Amino acid sequence: MAHTIRVLGIDPGLRRTGWGVIEVTGNRLVFIASGTVTSDNKKNLAQRLVQLHNGLSSVVDAQNPMEAAVELTFVNKDAGATLKLGQARGIALLVPSLAGLSVAEYAPNLVKKTVVGTGHADKEQIRVMVKILMPRATFDTDDAADALAIAICHAHHRGTATARMAQAGAA
Amino acid sequence: MAHTIRVLGIDPGLRRTGWGVIEVTGNRLVFIASGTVTSDNKKNLAQRLVQLHNGLSSVVDAQNPMEAAVELTFVNKDAGATLKLGQARGIALLVPSLAGLSVAEYAPNLVKKTVVGTGHADKEQIRVMVKILMPRATFDTDDAADALAIAICHAHHRGTATARMAQAGAA
Repeated sequence: MAHTIRVLGIDPGLRRTGWGVIEVTGNRLVFIASGTVTSDNKKNLAQRLVQLHNGLSSVVDAQNPMEAAVELTFVNKDAGATLKLGQARGIALLVPSLAGLSVAEYAPNLVKKTVVGTGHADKEQIRVMVKILMPRATFDTDDAADALAIAICHAHHRGTATARMAQAGAA
Repeated sequence: MAHTIRVLGIDPGLRRTGWGVIEVTGNRLVFIASGTVTSDNKKNLAQRLVQLHNGLSSVVDAQNPMEAAVELTFVNKDAGATLKLGQARGIALLVPSLAGLSVAEYAPNLVKKTVVGTGHADKEQIRVMVKILMPRATFDTDDAADALAIAICHAHHRGTATARMAQAGAA
């Protein structure tokens, strides 16, 4: 009999970091919770990163996930935006790892392909498919829906996550 | 009579993060300690960020600085390198801020201009000037020397750091 794994998905961003927790038993997915951690753009960068850290730490403490998955950021042409996202991503990777969870990373295209069936799905299609796969799912933002999609992606690919993690960690 | 401020400078990097602690009393600078926190590139990214977090947390605990300063990363054309540096930088900003320290950010050109007198100084010139300004300074890597230069830069500009911090934190 398959045992149950509780997965935390995280869609990192400096202004809004989405999170979603699901339970996976074999092929069965159950929605547990989702939400959005925000940082105050009137504060300085270090203080905003503390807000993300504290918000995500509270989620890990309250939801008690066993594994985590973080979106492998799309690197666009704006270096300033990439740096900002990188800083938020650092916190999103750090917090579950500090709590002793394994942390897998998935490219946005793989997340979309796994959940919607195509690598070029838009946010509306992701929201709809998350609701079809987990009818009880609720989410307050697109970031929270994306985080649930990342958790679903991990549920499908976690058997091979080690390879992806090693790849993502290579210097 | 001027009181003494203990400043932690950090030069962030995923592979090597340099740190340096100095004491500032009016115009007088005293070297306290420096070092380098490294991460193991055989581990995955989340684990490497935990190594940086734990190493910097130990430095903050042991050295008890009152203020921190972090180099404002040069954004180059390689988006992958920028993202990687951003993730390490997120940790470098987070750790002192979690400990309740104010965290200022300084552009590399301002650090060089303050310490060497020109914004285009090379690493050798920085090492030499750090030794001239603080003859007892020791450093095991260029990153540690850079971190001491960042701390010196903060000593000179800390009166106006609030403005820079607000600017760096703006969305």
